[in-house]
Amino acid sequence: MAATPYEQLEQEFRRLHAFRGALAVLRWDAAVMMPRGSAEVRGEQLAALETECHALLTSPKVSRLIERAQANAQGLEDWQLANLREMRRERDHAIATPNALVSRLAKATARAEMYWLEARRTGRYADYAPHLAEVVALIRDRAALLGQHLGLGPYDALVDEFSPGVRTEEIDSLFKAVARRLPTLVKEAVALQSATPALAPTGKFAAARQRALCTEVMKAVGFPFDRGRLDESEHPFTEGMAGDIRITARFEPGDVFQGLLGAMHETGHAMYDLGLPQAWRDQPVGRNRGMALEESQSLLIEMMLGRSRPFLSYLKPLLEKHLGVSGPEWEAENLYRHLNRVHRGLIRAEADELTYPAHILLRYEIEKDLLAGELKVEQLPEAWNEKAAARLGLRPANDTEGCLQDIHWAVGQFGYFPAYALGALIAMQLWERLRADREGLDAEIAAGNFGGLFEWLRERVHGAGAKMTVQDLVKEASGRPLSAAPALRYLESKYLEPR
Amino acid sequence: MAATPYEQLEQEFRRLHAFRGALAVLRWDAAVMMPRGSAEVRGEQLAALETECHALLTSPKVSRLIERAQANAQGLEDWQLANLREMRRERDHAIATPNALVSRLAKATARAEMYWLEARRTGRYADYAPHLAEVVALIRDRAALLGQHLGLGPYDALVDEFSPGVRTEEIDSLFKAVARRLPTLVKEAVALQSATPALAPTGKFAAARQRALCTEVMKAVGFPFDRGRLDESEHPFTEGMAGDIRITARFEPGDVFQGLLGAMHETGHAMYDLGLPQAWRDQPVGRNRGMALEESQSLLIEMMLGRSRPFLSYLKPLLEKHLGVSGPEWEAENLYRHLNRVHRGLIRAEADELTYPAHILLRYEIEKDLLAGELKVEQLPEAWNEKAAARLGLRPANDTEGCLQDIHWAVGQFGYFPAYALGALIAMQLWERLRADREGLDAEIAAGNFGGLFEWLRERVHGAGAKMTVQDLVKEASGRPLSAAPALRYLESKYLEPR
Repeated sequence: MAATPYEQLEQEFRRLHAFRGALAVLRWDAAVMMPRGSAEVRGEQLAALETECHALLTSPKVSRLIERAQANAQGLEDWQLANLREMRRERDHAIATPNALVSRLAKATARAEMYWLEARRTGRYADYAPHLAEVVALIRDRAALLGQHLGLGPYDALVDEFSPGVRTEEIDSLFKAVARRLPTLVKEAVALQSATPALAPTGKFAAARQRALCTEVMKAVGFPFDRGRLDESEHPFTEGMAGDIRITARFEPGDVFQGLLGAMHETGHAMYDLGLPQAWRDQPVGRNRGMALEESQSLLIEMMLGRSRPFLSYLKPLLEKHLGVSGPEWEAENLYRHLNRVHRGLIRAEADELTYPAHILLRYEIEKDLLAGELKVEQLPEAWNEKAAARLGLRPANDTEGCLQDIHWAVGQFGYFPAYALGALIAMQLWERLRADREGLDAEIAAGNFGGLFEWLRERVHGAGAKMTVQDLVKEASGRPLSAAPALRYLESKYLEPR
Repeated sequence: MAATPYEQLEQEFRRLHAFRGALAVLRWDAAVMMPRGSAEVRGEQLAALETECHALLTSPKVSRLIERAQANAQGLEDWQLANLREMRRERDHAIATPNALVSRLAKATARAEMYWLEARRTGRYADYAPHLAEVVALIRDRAALLGQHLGLGPYDALVDEFSPGVRTEEIDSLFKAVARRLPTLVKEAVALQSATPALAPTGKFAAARQRALCTEVMKAVGFPFDRGRLDESEHPFTEGMAGDIRITARFEPGDVFQGLLGAMHETGHAMYDLGLPQAWRDQPVGRNRGMALEESQSLLIEMMLGRSRPFLSYLKPLLEKHLGVSGPEWEAENLYRHLNRVHRGLIRAEADELTYPAHILLRYEIEKDLLAGELKVEQLPEAWNEKAAARLGLRPANDTEGCLQDIHWAVGQFGYFPAYALGALIAMQLWERLRADREGLDAEIAAGNFGGLFEWLRERVHGAGAKMTVQDLVKEASGRPLSAAPALRYLESKYLEPR
């Protein structure tokens, strides 16, 4: 019997999945193993494979099959229908940008990234500005085309790539609720914490020891080392998929928690990818539900689990075993205080749970203004510094600790930043429900038993793949629509607790 | 101006080159880095990319462009013409085997390899035989189709894949000349050497020390560590291309020369690939000239250079530096005797220069008979053992040290074995000419200066890429047609020297 249009589509997307898997290995290798001088050759390989993926998604054949499968959709089951919808979604996102624009964007972002790196070094924003302006102009074109194609506003169309189904209207209302409460909450927390200082754990620890510690924790969490790896790279990341998943960490001799919590962050991503529906692993509906969900899973493991009292009491003997440390500064309660310190700072990547949203808000407002043409690229540093003063209570002394600190805009990632804050809100909402559902979770965690935690996440979150929108997924998993309330409850009870 | 058909072809083959580069990284990773349990996922990625390469080569578009470029060939230069010829050659080899046969072969060889591994363990050839028979039957079909398409005999068509331009007739005459002289030469050499025994260098050396030794030697030879790597794997290999070339070694604590000479063998391959014409690096004419040439380059570095007196005297202080060894058994002259010991054995992969050709001859005769249907797969062990007794003077006690020792036939590599012996003959012919051309070569080598040696090889051999047939390349490089005479001169003067 001949394959149906839908079956043929599955075949095409299976190829796409294999190409993407190959791309993942090539990117992992480039960051972890590749000799320095091989970047050009690797660039050619990546470009050839990316072009192939784009060609597959935008081929007349795939579009024809999608139309025909849609016309015969009555025979399809639930998951197949969702898969077909995701196929169309991927096709729509790919086809809306003409090849010429794709290639201009690739060149412009490669150039802008180079100038961004240079400007960070020299502090001269002006040298970088024209290249960023070029990227902004091209992204505006792209957002307009994508919006037209998807029936969305231009910025919403960009957001939809990273947080499928989420619209500006909803982000605005979530962020507003957060922004209303946070500034005073930060003040209160800082005042409370100043009364109970924490001892700083100190010492220098070889990468091999830190790695052994991470490996033991990752094994306890359930990371499958027979189908995955832990390596080192400049910037930690997760690459690959269930079947071959690889995370990296960065081990600083003087800061063991940077390495460990970084590895836990990536392990959160990895566990999400590993929990995706196995039966759909090579299909669009078997993919993760975008960056907001990904970030919720990494934050849940790094922030909610990794900085919790029960986890730190599980960790204490492991610190002693692998690093040979003990004493008051390595006690669980002291580590808890140390690792949950609230601190106003200028750098997003170093921010704590409480001050983090302000960093995102400021970027969110600025990137919307840049795209709407209401803010010019030359005005960016000044706008940034003013907003930083207002939102963070600090004014950058230079652009390197101001508008040059993130790579995202240089490489064309507009619409991405909200996913970080959404991810944090989702994580806290899921965490609240998880704790309500699983009595005895703290005791399990303290005993190094993480099975129940991940069982819940797999059932409620990971196993849904890309079957629903972000909002529906959160609602199904937590029993309530996505809102800022659980996050505020979590933050208030954590940071305003009497000590 | 629109691209000419020839220019469009270059574009298509540039894509092919990028895909092949990606495949190389995926294969390297699978052997060196990949977690055990990820083989299935990797298999899907490799298959998807290999299918893509095959589809590209056999596409109507490429065939049409080849015809049109051929029709307008008067405007093309030398190298472009050779490139067009190689494009056609690759297309012809790919298109002659129908997709159905390609996929049946892939399955049959995967199965046969599994049963081959198992039979090596159990010693039960009979369990493996039906699977080998299936491979032989499919390869016979393939050889017939390929022969028809190329206008060659079936076996010649297979040989042409590994040693472009070389025909059975020529192999027969070369092998005949070698077979006529070698048996007595082996006897004479063994008798002579028994009068001058060598001390065996002993000791256990950690992999890290052996690796440091290899790295220093490879650096001296000119291996570019900024665009290449040395790693460890079960079986040493070379993967990649100029721009990102990676070799592996296997370090046995008790046998430092296995690791070092293995690494030098692979370095020989790597230096060939690095010396290919840079201007044509992503085109068919810029590829190596097949396995016979590849093998000539690895043997030249491992056997001719690596086991020479001047090299060993360069090596002596490095052995002391990295392994901390000295004493009579580590003296250059003793190492020379030890490493050039002639020893009748049953295992090809362990054979010395003098007994190696007999191993190939026996396989060459048997695989021709298998393909011609003159030998049945069930009769293989008996035929092997008889030929081994006649050619090697030894009879295998079991099939694991007999017809089960090589993987080649299980994975469908018929026509490959002659390339090993041809490679050895070519290496010795090139070596003779190189020594005649470069007075003072020995002194350079003893001083650790390998620049002149590789300059000669780049100019005469590597830089020609795939511009000529194997025979023309050897003739241009050495000034004489390929023959067995230089090899016999080299072997006689080396192994019959008065000690």
